[in-house]
Amino acid sequence: MNATISVPVPGQGLHEITGEVSAVVRQAGVADGLCTVFIQHTSASLTIQENADPSARADLENWLNRLVPENDPAFTHTMEGPDDMPSHIKAALTAASLSIPIVEGRLALGTWQGIYVWEHRRHRGTRRVIVNISN
Amino acid sequence: MNATISVPVPGQGLHEITGEVSAVVRQAGVADGLCTVFIQHTSASLTIQENADPSARADLENWLNRLVPENDPAFTHTMEGPDDMPSHIKAALTAASLSIPIVEGRLALGTWQGIYVWEHRRHRGTRRVIVNISN
Amino acid sequence: MNATISVPVPGQGLHEITGEVSAVVRQAGVADGLCTVFIQHTSASLTIQENADPSARADLENWLNRLVPENDPAFTHTMEGPDDMPSHIKAALTAASLSIPIVEGRLALGTWQGIYVWEHRRHRGTRRVIVNISN
Repeated sequence: MNATISVPVPGQGLHEITGEVSAVVRQAGVADGLCTVFIQHTSASLTIQENADPSARADLENWLNRLVPENDPAFTHTMEGPDDMPSHIKAALTAASLSIPIVEGRLALGTWQGIYVWEHRRHRGTRRVIVNISN
Repeated sequence: MNATISVPVPGQGLHEITGEVSAVVRQAGVADGLCTVFIQHTSASLTIQENADPSARADLENWLNRLVPENDPAFTHTMEGPDDMPSHIKAALTAASLSIPIVEGRLALGTWQGIYVWEHRRHRGTRRVIVNISN
Repeated sequence: MNATISVPVPGQGLHEITGEVSAVVRQAGVADGLCTVFIQHTSASLTIQENADPSARADLENWLNRLVPENDPAFTHTMEGPDDMPSHIKAALTAASLSIPIVEGRLALGTWQGIYVWEHRRHRGTRRVIVNISN
């Protein structure tokens, strides 16, 4: 069973989708199974990160921006803007798919874990995420 | 079918769990299927690495420690200790979930592959890993 | 259901396997399900990247080669050649497994997404990839 989630993103950063994914799991009515989240893009990605203190996510994003700066003189793929090539690199270093067990009808996330779409481009847009439930 | 493994970790480093995951696969009695391993934490992660020469794992860990040093002046998330924010970054750069096919009742790992919990924090503790088997 | 794909690689770089994986999905005849791709090696990995402009893949590869250079004086695992230890690190930073939903009998990849084996070693060889289909 698959469901598509459209995630509006205001720009670069981590946007939580734990609630949306959990809603798909509830609707599926599966007691024990597996939930796989997949993002249909190469300049945005997925991550599971701490959901408590927003400073951890801000530091994470700043750190990765410093590791993969824009306007790297070695880049040749520059036609789609200075934030495009760094976005592809950041996507390769993080996740396109995540699989989370379903236990007793719920996502078996740890206490401090949230599921995030990590938008790497600077513009406002909508990202498509597919949620697959198997049992 | 889901099973929970408690992994005692003496501190930072890669701790092999191939045997524990394989035991869950054997108990499940599935001939052909998929085994998904998920870690319920954001300051430890999972990786598949060479299981033969421990120097490869030592070099891997040292390399990542150098890439993500503690006490980075840009960090604002510092209340949980100097090893906490680097741990979240390292977790984002590695894996929260891994899926390995089951072929003829066994994990279809390559000859040199082992499954590891990668503890990023310095203290002794216990990490929770969930193993899902589907067919 | 599992199928093994042998991927001949001429050397370092991204080698597309979207066609081979799609063929396994077609043969499986599953309308809605999940396709998991797993690589049985620790010095090559998997990634989903832009399939349109080859300059993006070239920049990605060059960037990672610069991040993880050969002949790092800190390396101790050097017996298997100067490209071996960087390969293990690159594999840890990218993916050993990828899971892609199957929707209406087809891989639900985004328009610009391709599935690639990322060979990190310099020599010609063959890599083994297992494709699992579940529903």
